[in-house]
Amino acid sequence: MNYKQVLKEIQPLDTDAKLKAGARLDSLIKPIGSLGKLEDIARQISGITGEIINKVDKKCTVIMAADNGVVEEGVSTAPKEITAMQTINILNGLAGISVLSKQAKAEIRVIDIGVAGDISHKNLISKKVKMGTGNIAMGPAMTTEEAIKAIEIGIDIIKELHTEGYNLIGTGEMGIGNTTTSSAVLMCLTGADANRSVGKGAGMSDDALEHKKRVIERAINLNNPNKNDPIDVVAKVGGLDIAGLVGCYIGAAYYRIPIVIDGVISAAAALLAYRLNPITKDYMIPSHYSEEPAFKHIMESMNLEPNLHLNMRLGEGTGCPLMFHIIESALAVISEMATFDQLQMDNDFLVDIR
Amino acid sequence: MNYKQVLKEIQPLDTDAKLKAGARLDSLIKPIGSLGKLEDIARQISGITGEIINKVDKKCTVIMAADNGVVEEGVSTAPKEITAMQTINILNGLAGISVLSKQAKAEIRVIDIGVAGDISHKNLISKKVKMGTGNIAMGPAMTTEEAIKAIEIGIDIIKELHTEGYNLIGTGEMGIGNTTTSSAVLMCLTGADANRSVGKGAGMSDDALEHKKRVIERAINLNNPNKNDPIDVVAKVGGLDIAGLVGCYIGAAYYRIPIVIDGVISAAAALLAYRLNPITKDYMIPSHYSEEPAFKHIMESMNLEPNLHLNMRLGEGTGCPLMFHIIESALAVISEMATFDQLQMDNDFLVDIR
Repeated sequence: MNYKQVLKEIQPLDTDAKLKAGARLDSLIKPIGSLGKLEDIARQISGITGEIINKVDKKCTVIMAADNGVVEEGVSTAPKEITAMQTINILNGLAGISVLSKQAKAEIRVIDIGVAGDISHKNLISKKVKMGTGNIAMGPAMTTEEAIKAIEIGIDIIKELHTEGYNLIGTGEMGIGNTTTSSAVLMCLTGADANRSVGKGAGMSDDALEHKKRVIERAINLNNPNKNDPIDVVAKVGGLDIAGLVGCYIGAAYYRIPIVIDGVISAAAALLAYRLNPITKDYMIPSHYSEEPAFKHIMESMNLEPNLHLNMRLGEGTGCPLMFHIIESALAVISEMATFDQLQMDNDFLVDIR
Repeated sequence: MNYKQVLKEIQPLDTDAKLKAGARLDSLIKPIGSLGKLEDIARQISGITGEIINKVDKKCTVIMAADNGVVEEGVSTAPKEITAMQTINILNGLAGISVLSKQAKAEIRVIDIGVAGDISHKNLISKKVKMGTGNIAMGPAMTTEEAIKAIEIGIDIIKELHTEGYNLIGTGEMGIGNTTTSSAVLMCLTGADANRSVGKGAGMSDDALEHKKRVIERAINLNNPNKNDPIDVVAKVGGLDIAGLVGCYIGAAYYRIPIVIDGVISAAAALLAYRLNPITKDYMIPSHYSEEPAFKHIMESMNLEPNLHLNMRLGEGTGCPLMFHIIESALAVISEMATFDQLQMDNDFLVDIR
């Protein structure tokens, strides 16, 4: 689907449904607002679906796998080959996201959107735009056309999930070097400096961290993306995984499905989608508070507050299945708790504790 | 069971099992430590059970219901009658803790440890120590003997759950006025002042909050509990619900079952148990970050970090079933993720990403 058309047709949340959900939450047998973010989530999902009572019984985390040319610069302790291997491990049920998804009765969908090598697996969705991006320290990651192609792949994946009846989506990724590209995207979009925006990813020495910061600064200076043009930013200093996830956020807003943000890569994609159309944010639900410093700035710039503080920094989408449990709990509250009126019918002496 | 004997016989965590669990976590196909607190929880539970691989398939939140005489002073916006009514609502599956427990496939056990009135329900466990405590602004909440009786009821409840094979326990309560007693307990134990320790509970005006602070200060001055004697503190300015939960923490440590902390009342009981025997802390797992100001100080004084930031302030134990999901996820990680060694057998080219 044409991403410009989709962006244009995204509709805001259903205000009436949100208000009605809020009224129901206020009528439940508890002090008003005392279930905090569980209530916010229930209200948000009502605004997304237009229904007061909702159920998420088909959940799926979309995992975009791609390589990043900037790994040549030594910005990651893990070799580039890991992208392909770990993508297969995820599909084989062996990785963190596989295990946590199974535990949450959620599915995964893994897309090869730019792995630098031929990989195959019966459950892999092959949508390779190219064999990994260019090295952003030497030139652009990809062309504008490639970035758009990756975004539209993301939209199409959500279209398929929507057709199949999925009602809760998570965002994951696999791509060595993608905390580097995520920090670069954040720095371009917000003007934040490297000291506040670059972290150790899966782990590295202090010297390696300084090197990573210099590489990102070089990439931004060299490519000089237009900070007011998210497509230009993701094409020049981003990655195919990030671009694919941008499409997922746009698609989720278009098809009115709640979509969960994972860590820093997923959050960078969320920020790009938000800059393309701010309404997309209303369909997003943050999960955990990533350890990567860029994550904090992205959340602040979108005014989002993560729900889980678990010191996680694995990626793959691992925050999403954890958050699925909290979302399902929020929906149980609004649909299953009693209201004061219900009790009043049974008990004339009931006192209203609100 | 005699609480002094139980306190004396509590054993520390199994260091060897913790180390072995840590080694297994480090061998999984992920950067070392990248699953943060999920790894900490898996390691802790190994220390508790002595096994590397654990499963929590019988989960129960214990809800201690009791009235507080201090409600006479106007420290709560809700009338005292709510304690009895909401206790029955909980048992009838209508309240927040009922719905969230069902969603988490967890059970609840509700104990009348001091409700000021006769209540009955087929699933209520009647262990009433007395018809609510005395008004702490006028005298002690209860005698030392009554406090000990309540603690031993808590221990015995855990003994029963242990016999029945429960392997994960949550702590909940129902008792109008119990944020007042919890703040009083915190202030006695830590010397923190009212401005930092007293909050609006389920909700009240700024004036009512100032009044609540003055009532607590008066209660502490009048009763002058020995801050080095947790039994004296809970007897003089605490409540029967808090004392019952102290027993639950002690019992969980004695029977080596992980026990989850909910909000400020549950946390005040945790702090009392910790002061009675610091090893009890090793069996505790915090859940959410309660909105009540006393909660923050209790967590800091025990050096515990809550995992869920959901702006909740309902009580009843509602943080526990939410946290059960995260704990089960942590145990899925250690038991189901692949190790590098496992993969090495299948793939000679595998690169170690640690």
